[in-house]
Amino acid sequence: MELWYTEKHSEHAGFTLKVSKTLFSGESEFQKLEIVETPEYGRMMLLDDLVMVTERDEFIYHEMIVHPALFTHPDPKRVLVIGGGDGGSIREIMKHPGVEQAVLCEIDGLVIDKSIELLPSMACDINGSNPRVHVRVSDGLVYLREHQNAFDVILVDSTDPVGPAEGLFAKDFYRLVFGALKEDGLMVAQTESPFYHGEIQKHMYRNLRAVFPMVEMYQAFIPTYPSGLWSFAFASKRYHPIRDFHREKAQKRGFSTRYYNEDLHLGAFMLPTFVKENIAE
Amino acid sequence: MELWYTEKHSEHAGFTLKVSKTLFSGESEFQKLEIVETPEYGRMMLLDDLVMVTERDEFIYHEMIVHPALFTHPDPKRVLVIGGGDGGSIREIMKHPGVEQAVLCEIDGLVIDKSIELLPSMACDINGSNPRVHVRVSDGLVYLREHQNAFDVILVDSTDPVGPAEGLFAKDFYRLVFGALKEDGLMVAQTESPFYHGEIQKHMYRNLRAVFPMVEMYQAFIPTYPSGLWSFAFASKRYHPIRDFHREKAQKRGFSTRYYNEDLHLGAFMLPTFVKENIAE
Repeated sequence: MELWYTEKHSEHAGFTLKVSKTLFSGESEFQKLEIVETPEYGRMMLLDDLVMVTERDEFIYHEMIVHPALFTHPDPKRVLVIGGGDGGSIREIMKHPGVEQAVLCEIDGLVIDKSIELLPSMACDINGSNPRVHVRVSDGLVYLREHQNAFDVILVDSTDPVGPAEGLFAKDFYRLVFGALKEDGLMVAQTESPFYHGEIQKHMYRNLRAVFPMVEMYQAFIPTYPSGLWSFAFASKRYHPIRDFHREKAQKRGFSTRYYNEDLHLGAFMLPTFVKENIAE
Repeated sequence: MELWYTEKHSEHAGFTLKVSKTLFSGESEFQKLEIVETPEYGRMMLLDDLVMVTERDEFIYHEMIVHPALFTHPDPKRVLVIGGGDGGSIREIMKHPGVEQAVLCEIDGLVIDKSIELLPSMACDINGSNPRVHVRVSDGLVYLREHQNAFDVILVDSTDPVGPAEGLFAKDFYRLVFGALKEDGLMVAQTESPFYHGEIQKHMYRNLRAVFPMVEMYQAFIPTYPSGLWSFAFASKRYHPIRDFHREKAQKRGFSTRYYNEDLHLGAFMLPTFVKENIAE
């Protein structure tokens, strides 16, 4: 029997992938978790039936949620990831030797455990082997309340604004992030697809602008996410992602990247007209 | 009965869309042509079962195949489109008041006729109403041979490199384009998806570089094309798409665009690392 998974990106459009094997299927107290093998994209993790990551294209999402922030802040030493239980963001953060401590705060311990077991190329730094990484299984909101003025950079590597991540898109949440950042701190959050989620984006950027003095959107192509065009919010207390970008540091980075580079850093902030207009102040 | 169309982007992955109505289905001497109604993307044209254009996202492809070229050439007066029988590229060219004549050279008259009838928002300038537009139903190779040293800009708005467009990706074809351009002319061609068609791209860029002194790739996001990440080749005799870009002219364009703008023009040439490396010389 040939099995195909189809994710509906809207009521009338979707993405379909052949699935060769189910490696894990279970339910935590928060959500349904599945990890399957696909011939086209390698192993794929789904939460509540939606694609979270695949081995083949995860490098794009993870490089792009991490490096623009870490090459803009002049000296990021303490970095917090909220969500991101697969470990891919932590892996990219660890490529920056100046980072002394990275904390992963993921609400669902099952996601972490199964990523360590079945997605080792992503979870390589959250399996206890890296002394610079601290893993906390906790609600992000609770963790932020207990760690005010503590981080240089916070990355919100969340699922979509339904289910357990719903609270991570509200104004109160952004206020908590603001408070947990040091006085020159900055945050990056994934903010869905401009093509399918325009209304949600309008709302998110309005909320972010009510809290942060500087908010910019940037984009990346992620083939397994709805429409292929994905967006991130860069929200900052002091540093601007273009004007304060450490281009030479990015150019001379001592590690390889497959998507991010110092030119693309700039290009990612140059948005299509319909995207800019939708989130204009 | 609910009908869904699925385009396989590879053997094991695809894009699926609900189809509410078939408006036309027929066969020309070159290919199978279908125009259907979809609830998500409006009307959609398929050639040999592959998505060519949809009403909802065609603006991206057509703005991006036209405006980077026409805002780089300092004075484009004569423009040729090879393929592009839906008329969308011609519509965008007509937004440039300096263009005195645009020629559409499409091999398949049925594509033109059915676009005029069923896709009027794209075919608005190829229905005989615009005196600046000349429509020729002809093989592009034959037309180019007969029109050497004639055009400022040539746009290759072709289908994929299988079927009737196969000849439009070979070195001999690029030589004919080179000859049909004036001494400072330039061409743009669609060059498939970096994500799914890396091998084809390697080959195309090698062929282009054997003919043109200056070849650059740029990208656009097109949700209904494989992976969402699409690419174009900018091949030129003299003008460079960044150094010779008329930014102020683009900024003060007297027409609206929904994707293209003067910043995005630059950003489109800033490529992901894996894309750049794949076509590196």
